[in-house]
Amino acid sequence: MSTAEVPVTSDDQAEHADSPGYTQPVVDVEALGLLLDGRYHEIRQLVRDNLAEHAGILVDAEELSRADFRERVKDVVVQMAGTGQTGMGFPEEYGGGADIGASVAAFETMGFGDLSVLVKIGVQFGLFGGAILQLGTKRHHDAHLRDLISGRTMGCFAMTEFGHGSNVQALGTTATYDADTQEFVIHTPDDASRKDYIGNSAVHGELAVVFAQLEVAGESHGVHALVVPLRKDGQVVDGVRIEDCGRKMGLNGVDNGHIWFDQVRVPREALLNQFADVTPEGVYESAIENPNRRFFTMLGTLVQGRVCVGGAAINAAKVALAIAVRYADRRRQFEASTDGEETLLLDYGMHQRRLFPLLARTYALHFAQDVVSQQLHDVFSGPGPNEAGGESEQERRKLEARAAGTKALGTWHATETIQECREACGGAGYISENRFDALKADTDVFTTFEGDNHVLLQLVAKGLLTDYSSEFEDMDQFGMVRFVAGIAVETVVERTAVHKLFQSLRDLLPGGDQWDQEAGLLDPNYQLAMLRFREEHMLAGVARRLKRGIDEGLNPGDVFSRVQDHVIATARAHTERLVLEAFVARAAELEDGDLKVALNLLCDLYALTTIETDRGWFMEHGRLSSARSKAISREVNDLCRKIRPIAVDLVDAFGVPPEMLRAADLVGGPGRDAVS
Amino acid sequence: MSTAEVPVTSDDQAEHADSPGYTQPVVDVEALGLLLDGRYHEIRQLVRDNLAEHAGILVDAEELSRADFRERVKDVVVQMAGTGQTGMGFPEEYGGGADIGASVAAFETMGFGDLSVLVKIGVQFGLFGGAILQLGTKRHHDAHLRDLISGRTMGCFAMTEFGHGSNVQALGTTATYDADTQEFVIHTPDDASRKDYIGNSAVHGELAVVFAQLEVAGESHGVHALVVPLRKDGQVVDGVRIEDCGRKMGLNGVDNGHIWFDQVRVPREALLNQFADVTPEGVYESAIENPNRRFFTMLGTLVQGRVCVGGAAINAAKVALAIAVRYADRRRQFEASTDGEETLLLDYGMHQRRLFPLLARTYALHFAQDVVSQQLHDVFSGPGPNEAGGESEQERRKLEARAAGTKALGTWHATETIQECREACGGAGYISENRFDALKADTDVFTTFEGDNHVLLQLVAKGLLTDYSSEFEDMDQFGMVRFVAGIAVETVVERTAVHKLFQSLRDLLPGGDQWDQEAGLLDPNYQLAMLRFREEHMLAGVARRLKRGIDEGLNPGDVFSRVQDHVIATARAHTERLVLEAFVARAAELEDGDLKVALNLLCDLYALTTIETDRGWFMEHGRLSSARSKAISREVNDLCRKIRPIAVDLVDAFGVPPEMLRAADLVGGPGRDAVS
Repeated sequence: MSTAEVPVTSDDQAEHADSPGYTQPVVDVEALGLLLDGRYHEIRQLVRDNLAEHAGILVDAEELSRADFRERVKDVVVQMAGTGQTGMGFPEEYGGGADIGASVAAFETMGFGDLSVLVKIGVQFGLFGGAILQLGTKRHHDAHLRDLISGRTMGCFAMTEFGHGSNVQALGTTATYDADTQEFVIHTPDDASRKDYIGNSAVHGELAVVFAQLEVAGESHGVHALVVPLRKDGQVVDGVRIEDCGRKMGLNGVDNGHIWFDQVRVPREALLNQFADVTPEGVYESAIENPNRRFFTMLGTLVQGRVCVGGAAINAAKVALAIAVRYADRRRQFEASTDGEETLLLDYGMHQRRLFPLLARTYALHFAQDVVSQQLHDVFSGPGPNEAGGESEQERRKLEARAAGTKALGTWHATETIQECREACGGAGYISENRFDALKADTDVFTTFEGDNHVLLQLVAKGLLTDYSSEFEDMDQFGMVRFVAGIAVETVVERTAVHKLFQSLRDLLPGGDQWDQEAGLLDPNYQLAMLRFREEHMLAGVARRLKRGIDEGLNPGDVFSRVQDHVIATARAHTERLVLEAFVARAAELEDGDLKVALNLLCDLYALTTIETDRGWFMEHGRLSSARSKAISREVNDLCRKIRPIAVDLVDAFGVPPEMLRAADLVGGPGRDAVS
Repeated sequence: MSTAEVPVTSDDQAEHADSPGYTQPVVDVEALGLLLDGRYHEIRQLVRDNLAEHAGILVDAEELSRADFRERVKDVVVQMAGTGQTGMGFPEEYGGGADIGASVAAFETMGFGDLSVLVKIGVQFGLFGGAILQLGTKRHHDAHLRDLISGRTMGCFAMTEFGHGSNVQALGTTATYDADTQEFVIHTPDDASRKDYIGNSAVHGELAVVFAQLEVAGESHGVHALVVPLRKDGQVVDGVRIEDCGRKMGLNGVDNGHIWFDQVRVPREALLNQFADVTPEGVYESAIENPNRRFFTMLGTLVQGRVCVGGAAINAAKVALAIAVRYADRRRQFEASTDGEETLLLDYGMHQRRLFPLLARTYALHFAQDVVSQQLHDVFSGPGPNEAGGESEQERRKLEARAAGTKALGTWHATETIQECREACGGAGYISENRFDALKADTDVFTTFEGDNHVLLQLVAKGLLTDYSSEFEDMDQFGMVRFVAGIAVETVVERTAVHKLFQSLRDLLPGGDQWDQEAGLLDPNYQLAMLRFREEHMLAGVARRLKRGIDEGLNPGDVFSRVQDHVIATARAHTERLVLEAFVARAAELEDGDLKVALNLLCDLYALTTIETDRGWFMEHGRLSSARSKAISREVNDLCRKIRPIAVDLVDAFGVPPEMLRAADLVGGPGRDAVS
């Protein structure tokens, strides 16, 4: 589903808060909940039921020893696997659900609960299972899928090394083919090449998908993946050494370890040979000739993990908001002068300012996540990258960039939101029972695992700058610098989608060149045009700076370093534009009525706080006058006051299971009814 | 020491980075360390030695059970007390050091180590001991000080209640005088009045200073403090009920509890009677007639705790920066095109942008903290509030406001800095051994305890708006609204210090009204003038808005709610101005040389990033052109590149004991030498 092509008609504005006909909406919580759940309501309900059934694990996380908690988490994962919840992304013939979108929806919903369970599921079914499915062929599927889907075989995804987390193309582990025995020899040449922080490896993992430099007949073919046994009957096999990573900030129910391989031999068939193979005689074969492209095609299978983590992070933020908003709706502090009763926190303007923009952004990201998850479903339900032509390949690159951007913004949003909500609950927010302890500690790594957010935003920017061209995968960041510097700046900008959109919108907007003066702040066309202008302008600026740096004779590394903050800002601006488009399009689809009014309040608040946050940039670039900038801040406050009466309904609609909101002192005991 | 009166001469500019004579400084780490330590170098070294001696507690925090860790923390606290470290703020006749500044310096330095030890020290010697010292008289000093200074008697500070954290004037606990027995009866009337999160109470506290509504002969006299026994021979005394708060996000070495009192009787002499007393016959007496002023005078003794927490937070941020900067100076990722070696993280422009402004702000806050700590020393070493006249009372109010602002900014800075540094260390930052786990979890509550940061900033704003007038203590936030609305806006602004300063500076600045166009970005006079203008303008805006709201007939609660975000922003702008003044003044004092050049780089970076962050506001208010705003961003990047070569020296100068930087994988093993 592409939302970009849906221009919003002026009729849609009638529902916005500045129209004369505006009346305060009444929110049907159940209807809004169904709207949020979307087509995957059923699987989300199954997960909610599973979470409620195993709610005791939230207490276990605090009370059990690390060793016991790891076992408990494993048990819950296996039990949940038994309900079919975790196998939705696998083919039916192996016991899966054959619905990738459902698999993402299930994973996202796990974000309401204990996140060790979530991450263990991610490692087992997403990373390990996903690699077997996507990188392997029938022999691997037949050998492993049924057992891993049921949780009988636990596995690891051994990519990251101590020396290389982000730059995985430079991994040090080797897999050398021995034609005499028809085996690969897996080896860790030095400590920098030890596999690091590998989930499931310290205790439970029996198998690992190991990423290593493939060497055949003295020639290196780059990073490939192989299935390597780690344990047999619970004992670590010869040649493998595993050390426990020990205590982490959070996610202590997941057993992370360091792994070293000392000349470990696996049969030739252990190579996951979807994209490349080695014949018994030792001839390397691949349908993808370019080694870089081959590597990035394999890496592309990681995209599902990023989509999943982004969605889970957004849902973790919902839990924090549900607690903080409900708390602020019952907690009073300091006396208002008139009636002698103390004032509810949620009636303070500052408290609204702290929570409601985050609430609005949570809704925005939810709908943006729906779009990326649907795209993932479509791309991965279609023909594989081997069979598909170039156009499909470009679709995959675009999906990867979109998933990267949404993951980065979604996970940073979770960190920020959980922190703000914790502080908004004062000292009570510090007590573990009230959930913020686990929410903070467990989500903290989301911003740097499954792709470091800054590195992911660079990936987004690379796509924009190169138009996802065929050279896309070949280029590291410095190659990208040279590539962009070699073409005209106008070319970079003109071929981007946003440029075309912006051109067509320029005519549509009221007032011609004066559009930013004339258009109503609550006109989604105005809001979108602002974000599109920013993106286009930033993109051109990056291209110009890169070109200038190379023209001045600087080396690409220095050029990149100097432009890097602009690169990151551009990627962020791009993703924020996509998020707003998704929200605007979803709201525009709705029938007129209170739900639409409520969502438009949130959509306006998201759009205007996004502009407000970056108002310095818009003023610097002549797209916002002082007066209008101040008007935006006033409008934001006004929107907050309009959201105040429906705020509790808006968080209730998230459908966080009552058992997941322990926080008895904060939200009034288990369950919604105790509060209302 | 007042820094505000020190106008910077144009000579000082010669050392700034835009002068033609600029050469990259070489940093003498030891000399810079001594400069940072200042006059309390000796006591800071004692604490460093104590921290190193008990370094094993960083591991114990992870490995011991909660019960065992609490005992361990208590033992370390008592051992440290034995070195004299924790008693610096008490009179010599009871075994103290009689140096309040030294007591603050010692506490701040504890911020490098385990923070449960820090907070337990804060509860025992700062809150409990401080209340006995400040609110009690000789009979209480004789009875308790010697034993509490040595740690033989452990005590609690029982103020906060479930229903009232910030608004402590509305506490529910009562202390009713029974003239027949000459006793006070301490009672918890309902669950909202239970004492909440009271440190030292779940296990160790034998005594508590309990804040309760004093009732004598049927008349209520507001909140007063009494010494109440909690335990005798380790057993909780009759009438007292204590529940363990259980697991918290961090600080699990401190035993927090909930306390209920059921008609507990204490002798008349238990009342801490420095500011008020009850005769045996039951007559209430106080030299301070106004009950509000009496209450806030008692509360004023809390100021030392706020100064201490702010300083500790700044030092915790130093630990995070020391780890992240050293890591980025040895960690390589992605290949630069030229030499085939991967690039150091610290050579990436974005990485510099993420860390160096935080490093600069840490230095700025360090010097601002020095100023507030010195003021605390001066005020509390002078005559007490009973003996002193009105002027001294106004000095106390100013100190309270300054301490509140610095505590708020310092603790938020710690939260932000630790988070950014964690992310900048990637997955390695998530492993508990690498320190960020404890740093994040333990400091998290700093923003909301010892005064919620938002409430503290409101206190700052109240002082500015009322000029710390005699009505200061009488006013709650709504009273403040009415007060301000009742006087001319000009009056509010004119009588503030910033207005006078700004007037005198206007003449001094080059270019008259065009000063913002003409002055050099690295001229501290320009930077200060910008922050002063912002503060003055915001303050006038708040006054105008409050007045308008009341004139329009809104009730004070609604008016306050609508203006609250401006109130908070004004207090923040005020405190940022004080911080910059402190930094500029300290740098200006230095002799010419490399240290001065280095500190000026940091001072410029702090000033310009502060302006850059709020550049939207400056442009809205006509004090920054687009071109100049962009120039500031370029200058910030340029300053970051200049700081790059000395960044490791700048964090080494903090003097974090090597044993406190566990993080072997990140910083290259224990000790500086392993890295350099």
